[in-house]
Amino acid sequence: MYGAGDVRVEQLPDPVIEQPTDALVRVVRSCVCGSDLHPYHSMPTSEQGTQMGHEFIGVVEEVGPQVATIRRGDFVIAPFAYFDNTCVFCREGLTTSCEHGGFFRTAQAEAVRVPLADGTLVKAPVDEDSALLPSLLTLSDVLITGHHAAVRGQVGKGSSVTVIGDGAVGLLAVLSAKRLGAEQIVLMGRHTARTDLGREFGATEAVSARGEEGITAVRELTGGHGSSAVLECVGHLPAYEQALGVVRAGGVISRVGVPQYQEAPAGLDLFGRNITLTGGPGAQRSYVEELLPDVLEGRIEPGRVFDRTVGLDDVPAGYQAMDSREALKVLVLP
Amino acid sequence: MYGAGDVRVEQLPDPVIEQPTDALVRVVRSCVCGSDLHPYHSMPTSEQGTQMGHEFIGVVEEVGPQVATIRRGDFVIAPFAYFDNTCVFCREGLTTSCEHGGFFRTAQAEAVRVPLADGTLVKAPVDEDSALLPSLLTLSDVLITGHHAAVRGQVGKGSSVTVIGDGAVGLLAVLSAKRLGAEQIVLMGRHTARTDLGREFGATEAVSARGEEGITAVRELTGGHGSSAVLECVGHLPAYEQALGVVRAGGVISRVGVPQYQEAPAGLDLFGRNITLTGGPGAQRSYVEELLPDVLEGRIEPGRVFDRTVGLDDVPAGYQAMDSREALKVLVLP
Repeated sequence: MYGAGDVRVEQLPDPVIEQPTDALVRVVRSCVCGSDLHPYHSMPTSEQGTQMGHEFIGVVEEVGPQVATIRRGDFVIAPFAYFDNTCVFCREGLTTSCEHGGFFRTAQAEAVRVPLADGTLVKAPVDEDSALLPSLLTLSDVLITGHHAAVRGQVGKGSSVTVIGDGAVGLLAVLSAKRLGAEQIVLMGRHTARTDLGREFGATEAVSARGEEGITAVRELTGGHGSSAVLECVGHLPAYEQALGVVRAGGVISRVGVPQYQEAPAGLDLFGRNITLTGGPGAQRSYVEELLPDVLEGRIEPGRVFDRTVGLDDVPAGYQAMDSREALKVLVLP
Repeated sequence: MYGAGDVRVEQLPDPVIEQPTDALVRVVRSCVCGSDLHPYHSMPTSEQGTQMGHEFIGVVEEVGPQVATIRRGDFVIAPFAYFDNTCVFCREGLTTSCEHGGFFRTAQAEAVRVPLADGTLVKAPVDEDSALLPSLLTLSDVLITGHHAAVRGQVGKGSSVTVIGDGAVGLLAVLSAKRLGAEQIVLMGRHTARTDLGREFGATEAVSARGEEGITAVRELTGGHGSSAVLECVGHLPAYEQALGVVRAGGVISRVGVPQYQEAPAGLDLFGRNITLTGGPGAQRSYVEELLPDVLEGRIEPGRVFDRTVGLDDVPAGYQAMDSREALKVLVLP
């Protein structure tokens, strides 16, 4: 990406093992993320450009001499961050705060160098032609992010949940809330095709109105008080303000949309009604391990969020299709 | 209060029973709250003025015909809010969001009308001359507020906690964190006499520096990472910013100082490290009931925060003494 709206496909040297803890992974499937659209809208023009992509599944081609648990030929899932899985934060599950970790930024490609491969990569017992590939790919970001929203939102059996945003993360937040036992799941989104898929994932109601009108509609659906858990899956300030409007006193706003603002109403708007604000990046390895069996055994089908497939050469068109909302989520086949 | 710095003592008609669920309480002890200092600094001049005070203990003088559990002669504690204790929020413990409740604003006085007396008032088996009165009075606000900070901060056995603010709430947040099992309690405050009392309440370290210097000092004391629970007991924006600086990745900022700001850094500052922001008014009846036995049996002595006593006529001097930091907390003896 060389600036807003400017995505180019270029030939780069193959990645190589740089550290003894690295692995090289040949990418079998990658995709475009809703968060990639933020720089697609606002990135300043850059001479050197920046590589893109943080979601991939693939096959290990080579490992460094200190890699112990991963071998050439393994089929692996990489969460969108890499981590050692041994530091004090990783041991608590907070792998995105790993003391030696970082985030992938080169996954819309044919191959990726994976640092800290033993910590980062989760093996999956599938072949390259498995029908499960789209669903497995969601374990690299959108599904674990939606799950993180629900976990941080304290969603459990009988919860009343409102999900803000009908992008892929919002829809998989619906699926995650349902999986964790939520009783009511109101999905706020304007695209009927998407909210229809949200209903299949477990949404009990969909609200297309926004702003005050949308808030009123959600409050009516939730007994006048709002939802105890609001999962904010957008990242723009109006979505945060909508969350403030639909959250119940004593409830939780759990954000997984990357905030595109620095300051926000966070004084009495939260404090007066004892609202909790939480969330963040959720590339927890434990989430991948927890959700993988449900994907492998077909209990959930999160891969249904992919509604378009492009080859590497057509990635720029993939960005364009997601940006114009023609595509919900674009799968990349290198 | 008729404006910033303008507190007057005036003779008003005695309160009377207005609703069948009311009680009239003769005030035995009241006090001045740190939150009373916010309008003391900033209240616009007003012709009619506003009554003040929300903390009191006293003796019931009269009850309305629908009051069932409280009788004339009972010694009672009133949390700083009134509530029915039967609505959907009260049943969850969130009495400050009672559908029929509100906040006391007339307790720096000889007598108070208490709405919803059955829900609001907690009886205490003491006489008017009990040595426990100061500690019992803290159950009307400062102790339960400090306890709320610790509960919302998820403080438990072995926690690392930083308390911001050495006012009465901050010191009782220290006591509350200690009571809930915290292992490390760093108290940020500039007044040695206060932080010394904080150490007696359980603080393991005190940090007098503020801003970046204070943040660095706390991080050094907490293994470089900060505290998993930060209890913000001030309410001004610099205290919030300090909390952001000393909270550990994945940790909680629990606020009980009433925010004196509307907007705050609440984007990536919180999101990037999965910080949770929580807190609010904590007049939970359940807190009074939980903490009362510890006060009655002398296991805790929260009343030690009172370091000055005034009669009603000297309440203006009491505000002045707290505002100038000469007094930590002023007890009012009507």
